[in-house]
Amino acid sequence: MTEIERKFLVEGDTFKKEATKKLYFVQAYLNTDPDRTIRIRITDDNAFITIKGRSSSNGLSRYEWEKEIDVNEAKELLNLCEDGKIEKYRYLVPKGDHIFEVDEFHGDNEGLVLAEVELGSEEEDFEKPRWIKQEVTGNSAYYNSSLISNPFKNWKS
Amino acid sequence: MTEIERKFLVEGDTFKKEATKKLYFVQAYLNTDPDRTIRIRITDDNAFITIKGRSSSNGLSRYEWEKEIDVNEAKELLNLCEDGKIEKYRYLVPKGDHIFEVDEFHGDNEGLVLAEVELGSEEEDFEKPRWIKQEVTGNSAYYNSSLISNPFKNWKS
Repeated sequence: MTEIERKFLVEGDTFKKEATKKLYFVQAYLNTDPDRTIRIRITDDNAFITIKGRSSSNGLSRYEWEKEIDVNEAKELLNLCEDGKIEKYRYLVPKGDHIFEVDEFHGDNEGLVLAEVELGSEEEDFEKPRWIKQEVTGNSAYYNSSLISNPFKNWKS
Repeated sequence: MTEIERKFLVEGDTFKKEATKKLYFVQAYLNTDPDRTIRIRITDDNAFITIKGRSSSNGLSRYEWEKEIDVNEAKELLNLCEDGKIEKYRYLVPKGDHIFEVDEFHGDNEGLVLAEVELGSEEEDFEKPRWIKQEVTGNSAYYNSSLISNPFKNWKS
């Protein structure tokens, strides 16, 4: 199905006080081609394979297919992935009618914090938390699949 | 898990008389990198996603992970695949203790017929049917993922 999401930079760590859940994610990619990215993600007690198509021209919509898989099989598949992986904590932060997913990156992307909110339509409005800053929806540099080959630590000039 | 398979060219169509089952396959690839090929296959009434690693140096063994998926979702994923697809009939042909999978290719690979047999170990012996000819195990030109970019019709000189 098509997912509609908006993505923002996050300032500070006050979002953590509002979080209702915290999960640890390790993920890597079987394909980083923007036409067909394929992700293996292992979280605290489950694992998923996720396939995404190219983003729409405004960056808001993207085809996404996801299936839960066995954690041990996911570990085998991680070994098959392209070099590099993403490690991050995900915080779930409810705000009004929506739940923000706030990702605090570690490893080579230490210092980067991104928030995503999923919408029912491209026009849907939502309440913006105070800790949300610049919108980066559709900016491919912030795709997790891009953050492997060009991690945040290399951005600092 | 690791699959051990041997592959052969097939002569004539006498194998069809010995077949116990015939299936139609359409398949395409989300990645044709030999380190991580990802195949979407739709058959008569089910569909699969299959991920394979690089073959061992002798071409006999290869990591393989497969999961059945919804047929309608598989059709969506086919649209995300790299250009080109494989169309073939698969015949199941029992011989001694083994079942040969004989693939009769169509489309751009019309005229190519390949038989595969799965073994429990690299040393395991098996009864060779009369219609089996040259062994092509480990020859990457005969990988289905290669037959998309360089189909059999282009081989004829």
